Amino acid sequence: MKSYRETLEFNTPDRRDYINITQQVEIALKKSAIAEGLCLVNAMHITASVYINDDEQGLLKDYDDWLEGLAPHEPVGHYRHNGFEDNADAHLKRQIMGREVVVAVTNGALDLGPWEQIFYGEFDGRRMKRVLVKIIGE
Amino acid sequence: MKSYRETLEFNTPDRRDYINITQQVEIALKKSAIAEGLCLVNAMHITASVYINDDEQGLLKDYDDWLEGLAPHEPVGHYRHNGFEDNADAHLKRQIMGREVVVAVTNGALDLGPWEQIFYGEFDGRRMKRVLVKIIGE
Amino acid sequence: MKSYRETLEFNTPDRRDYINITQQVEIALKKSAIAEGLCLVNAMHITASVYINDDEQGLLKDYDDWLEGLAPHEPVGHYRHNGFEDNADAHLKRQIMGREVVVAVTNGALDLGPWEQIFYGEFDGRRMKRVLVKIIGE
Repeated sequence: MKSYRETLEFNTPDRRDYINITQQVEIALKKSAIAEGLCLVNAMHITASVYINDDEQGLLKDYDDWLEGLAPHEPVGHYRHNGFEDNADAHLKRQIMGREVVVAVTNGALDLGPWEQIFYGEFDGRRMKRVLVKIIGE
Repeated sequence: MKSYRETLEFNTPDRRDYINITQQVEIALKKSAIAEGLCLVNAMHITASVYINDDEQGLLKDYDDWLEGLAPHEPVGHYRHNGFEDNADAHLKRQIMGREVVVAVTNGALDLGPWEQIFYGEFDGRRMKRVLVKIIGE
Repeated sequence: MKSYRETLEFNTPDRRDYINITQQVEIALKKSAIAEGLCLVNAMHITASVYINDDEQGLLKDYDDWLEGLAPHEPVGHYRHNGFEDNADAHLKRQIMGREVVVAVTNGALDLGPWEQIFYGEFDGRRMKRVLVKIIGE
């Protein structure tokens, strides 16, 4: 069994952002030289998500509006977590979108459906954050 | 390390449906001849889910009502994604229910709890969709 | 390839609870003697979650309030699942928080970000429940 590890870094200018990281994961997979296995991609921070969905600008806006409706940032004082911080909503939004994806590796490529794109979802940006890519297989 | 790959196909008559696919995954596992490892089951389409929960008709109705409340299909024009399509709500519903499950394989069987059943959740049906089963182990 | 399996048991005094299980998973990993691989941690029951987020008391209260808002326990008769049971809300809450996490194993340790803690989320407690830890690798 082989394994490969790499971290990706993100520092978004806005509080919330949605970044297509599929190519970066594909590059990591090539470096791993693994042909058959599983590829885990997870946010290493608890106010961010890695998820798979469509790279369509309208949908990214819909996600942002919808998440803000389900877990609004304001009023900040509404959340008990926000004694020293103001990011409780980001911890909630991240649970909706998820921490991680596991993608099959087949014939040396990410085994994705036609519209599947891997995204980094940031809900409390403007600081350095990391995503872990861990691949195991042969 | 051994690996096995198979796709399952679904074409539901209705927009939304919830289908128990546990037996199909068990059959794939038997074909793989893998005794110890991990089994990834994921929707290959971004308006569908694979999730694990109860095979109980009342609960399936509860899920459907609840998801429709959290991310309503109508009014279609409410979503920016719906320029050429009408399925933005399906992209949202799928994030609540999730893209994938990873199930342990132990002694050649899916290592599931007593009530755990693997479901395909369709939120924009009436077309051919695929689910990927990827198993790695020994 | 090596594999290791262990179950953890929980019987919470209250209906809902959030328990940090990171140390228990670390102990399982040490017993496995696996240095590189993947560690699956999943609820074996369908009214509970395993998720990763912050071990901060205010946030745990925020999660509980938020989940109760999105999928309220009362009125029990609102849910079709609740003919013989009263836990439909727990099946819904668990979908928001997720069934499982997959954590990378690197150099014999859980490869977690600085604030990542593994939690057991119970939504229908006061009975014995199990969590599965399955680790594969080398």
